[in-house]
Amino acid sequence: MDIRIAIAQINSLVGDYQGNIKKIKNYIDQACENKADIIVFPEMCINGYPPEDLLLNTQFLKDSLKSIKEIASFSVDKDIVIILGAVECDEDYDIFNSAQIIFKGNLVESYRKRILSSLPFFDERRYFKPGEVITLIELKGTKIGITIGDEIHFQDSSFLSLLDNKVDLILNLSASPFYKKKINLSYGMMKTRAVDLASWILYCNMVGGQDELVFDGGSIVVNPYGVVEINAPLFEEGLYFVDINPDQAKRAKLKYKKREPIFENKNYVRIIDINKNIDKKVKMDTLKSEVPDEYEQLYLAIKLGLKDYVLKNGFKSVVLGLSGGVDSALVACMAVDAIGKENVLALIMPSQFTSNKSLEDAVELALNLGIEYKIISIKELYNAYLQALKESFEGTVFNETEENLQARIRGNIVMAFSNKFGHLVLACDNKSEVATGYSTLYGDTAGGLAPLKDLYKTELYKVAEKYNEIHNREIITKSILEKPPSAELRPNQKDEDKLPPYSILDEILFDYIERGKSYQDLLNEGYDEEVLKSVINMVERSEWKRRQLPPGIKLSEINFGKGWNMPITKKYQF
Amino acid sequence: MDIRIAIAQINSLVGDYQGNIKKIKNYIDQACENKADIIVFPEMCINGYPPEDLLLNTQFLKDSLKSIKEIASFSVDKDIVIILGAVECDEDYDIFNSAQIIFKGNLVESYRKRILSSLPFFDERRYFKPGEVITLIELKGTKIGITIGDEIHFQDSSFLSLLDNKVDLILNLSASPFYKKKINLSYGMMKTRAVDLASWILYCNMVGGQDELVFDGGSIVVNPYGVVEINAPLFEEGLYFVDINPDQAKRAKLKYKKREPIFENKNYVRIIDINKNIDKKVKMDTLKSEVPDEYEQLYLAIKLGLKDYVLKNGFKSVVLGLSGGVDSALVACMAVDAIGKENVLALIMPSQFTSNKSLEDAVELALNLGIEYKIISIKELYNAYLQALKESFEGTVFNETEENLQARIRGNIVMAFSNKFGHLVLACDNKSEVATGYSTLYGDTAGGLAPLKDLYKTELYKVAEKYNEIHNREIITKSILEKPPSAELRPNQKDEDKLPPYSILDEILFDYIERGKSYQDLLNEGYDEEVLKSVINMVERSEWKRRQLPPGIKLSEINFGKGWNMPITKKYQF
Repeated sequence: MDIRIAIAQINSLVGDYQGNIKKIKNYIDQACENKADIIVFPEMCINGYPPEDLLLNTQFLKDSLKSIKEIASFSVDKDIVIILGAVECDEDYDIFNSAQIIFKGNLVESYRKRILSSLPFFDERRYFKPGEVITLIELKGTKIGITIGDEIHFQDSSFLSLLDNKVDLILNLSASPFYKKKINLSYGMMKTRAVDLASWILYCNMVGGQDELVFDGGSIVVNPYGVVEINAPLFEEGLYFVDINPDQAKRAKLKYKKREPIFENKNYVRIIDINKNIDKKVKMDTLKSEVPDEYEQLYLAIKLGLKDYVLKNGFKSVVLGLSGGVDSALVACMAVDAIGKENVLALIMPSQFTSNKSLEDAVELALNLGIEYKIISIKELYNAYLQALKESFEGTVFNETEENLQARIRGNIVMAFSNKFGHLVLACDNKSEVATGYSTLYGDTAGGLAPLKDLYKTELYKVAEKYNEIHNREIITKSILEKPPSAELRPNQKDEDKLPPYSILDEILFDYIERGKSYQDLLNEGYDEEVLKSVINMVERSEWKRRQLPPGIKLSEINFGKGWNMPITKKYQF
Repeated sequence: MDIRIAIAQINSLVGDYQGNIKKIKNYIDQACENKADIIVFPEMCINGYPPEDLLLNTQFLKDSLKSIKEIASFSVDKDIVIILGAVECDEDYDIFNSAQIIFKGNLVESYRKRILSSLPFFDERRYFKPGEVITLIELKGTKIGITIGDEIHFQDSSFLSLLDNKVDLILNLSASPFYKKKINLSYGMMKTRAVDLASWILYCNMVGGQDELVFDGGSIVVNPYGVVEINAPLFEEGLYFVDINPDQAKRAKLKYKKREPIFENKNYVRIIDINKNIDKKVKMDTLKSEVPDEYEQLYLAIKLGLKDYVLKNGFKSVVLGLSGGVDSALVACMAVDAIGKENVLALIMPSQFTSNKSLEDAVELALNLGIEYKIISIKELYNAYLQALKESFEGTVFNETEENLQARIRGNIVMAFSNKFGHLVLACDNKSEVATGYSTLYGDTAGGLAPLKDLYKTELYKVAEKYNEIHNREIITKSILEKPPSAELRPNQKDEDKLPPYSILDEILFDYIERGKSYQDLLNEGYDEEVLKSVINMVERSEWKRRQLPPGIKLSEINFGKGWNMPITKKYQF
């Protein structure tokens, strides 16, 4: 007999119990209408994830328990098993990352995550106590195991060994954030686990932006032969259904030699028998959603992260400085796709060093996007600063000081529009700049969010091209895409005056930052000594700037955000 | 026979192996000259603490091993046992927080910290593997136990139980940062441990500033009766000596019933016999250093934190905006004491809203301190912005926008002096402002360091008064101390127009932030509902600003820094 499962790939908001509960109830109703036997929600979906230090707040913990009970009351007359990720706090104020199993008004059982995530931006070991008991649900002869988040990643744990040969289906309640290449890795891992255990695997992932993180959804169901039977869309909220045949798991197990569990302690397994009628029903269509390519994934992640950051923080609109360069062009484009062209204001702020071409390119982009733009010259303001500083700066030569003055005038103007009209400010930093400190703090870096902060310049171009491709139009013009990058803060300035060509720079940065290669490693790989030293020096000396940047959207394994913990004060030795 | 121990209360710099080794060698030489039997260094003193993600860098780890070996080679012909805190990395790249025991050129043993710190700004569990073995050194019949950092805090651990009745002296290598009230707490704890175990305790603590943290030194030696025999100065680097009579511990043990260890496993204890002659020597004088009162401790912590942040980051001088208010006045004063009056530049930047009194107060303070100051009017600049924005802001009314413009003009000017002349910028935020968001991001918050960021406004006044008291002069004038706080960004503005009186505000903030009381708790305590809601709303809504502030010096248990992890995106429910 097939079991029908509803997968609620929901977008929660941290701390918004009322809003989250409303969504959860709505999905339960829909699942009942579609005769689902079980509905599965993501990890901690009732609280939003990650709540970070809100977990140290007793009120937040009490509200979580109250909310779980509210869902239980709501379920009294519903013939569906509800499996809900939630923070659980016991009488001793031990806190658990739990999956609540709710049936007909009862809190039947709580499975508590046993292997806590050590990812630095989750830091679960700081907050949670690990659970001890493995929970299996028995539903008309079908054994269903529950796992939370990345505990399913640990192959050698006694945990999976215990599940081996015991379960027909493993539910995985997740809140797993996006990064490049993750989809393939994690789908591959789920397939491996399915075959390892000869079990169905159902991965139900959260969706939505939360500060730096974008939960990418993309829930899947893998059959016991390692084949994906359902894959829900990436980056979209929704309710998806699957009919699972538990016998397939039993048959698959017969193919393999039965293995003895490495570690067996009956005390650590609790089997919950749920007595529920499973109706014969018409089989649901299988959902096959296309997995977008790498740059489209980046596009979608930025779009969702940007949208949720703006809206969840109570803003309706954004403002940004448009320079005529590719970075601000792409930020403007992404903002339009995320929150609509009527909600994006572009400020074009030319100085004496701005080329006509840049001015024209900026205007053309604004027109292509159909967004409101204003041209506000900063010439007079810049001159006024030079005047105010004339006496003090007597006898000094033009250097970054004068360049930074211009960037900070622009920062001040953009912030003024934000203060006056309530727009959120978008900053246009990219990862190559952030890594090297090639930007003006409080100037071009000013803002509430820097959507492209985790894209290297070379990647940023690829996403810009993808943007045009998706829209089937050269919204970002050839002129913008093809001109040499420049901050235009002094005559005839080019980025490459101070930085190596981006193709080389980005390679070095990736190896140094994301692959942890040392100066010596890189030297051995044949990079030029001078170039290497200069790049590494820039990275090591700009930590203080990175500490003061707005958050960006995490798109890589190692972004400059919560998982990056480098001292400012230090001596770097080659 | 007394054992003479040299306590090296040193100030290391993270990653500066050459500099740290030079200091360490110098102290070893001095200890030998003074016929010490043992020299003890703080936790991780060869690497600097905390190295954070540098611990993920293989080169950093290799350099640590190389440095330990260099100290060993240096010790070949010296008749002294060296106990040195250092990062240890084994062949499998497991990393340990270790105490290296070095004698006559040999790495005799490595004690690996067993109970790792869970303090969020150390996050040791992320990096280190815990050790398993308890190490005892035997020196002419005297048993010496080794502990690292806060593992000595855990009374009930099997660890201390094992040491019980077995040791005459426990060395504690620490890198413990300052916070208010800590000194009493930690000295009290050491005394308790000494009596518990009937053992001498020698606590050797690091000194110096490292980003947010100030290690406060104040090493002590407690005798087996719980009496402090030596206390080294707080906030000062130095080498201190103590003669310890191990028999005192043996006699003290006779007074107590012998206890059976709670947990005994001989495999987990390793006893290292060091065959060293202990000379008869003239007894050293006992060092008794005065423990300063609470506000003097704060003064000293800020002074050292500021000095080390400036100098260790390669700066020689600082610049700041001087408003005539108490915050910037105290920052200027602290900077003068930290790095000398010739290295402090004050910018006085009056606008149309600046009172004559503020201008005069600022000038008078600069004259009192004997620092260079410049008066740069921002009137014209402010008017130029109003002009540039006139058309766009048509029909709107004066609000925070115009206020922030002024603050950001000042921020731009201060940063320009930094860029042009290489001064580090000091920001003048206090904790009450940072908590409520009552400041202009990129304006008055701009800078490399905010020395007073962890002082509530009411505390800041107390430290200002203490400053005058220490200097025996009214350097910070009555006029500055007595006028009502104002940002002077609009006519007749007072902080209390928007904030409750600081005496109430700071009480609420302390309870909410540092004691984790909820809105409901505070309401029950009798605070006004409107005031409470407004304060909590300000705190909850200004997270995004706090994320972009320069680091401050940690002075309390909970500062807005590395240990504060609150989501920006969230819904707060009363």
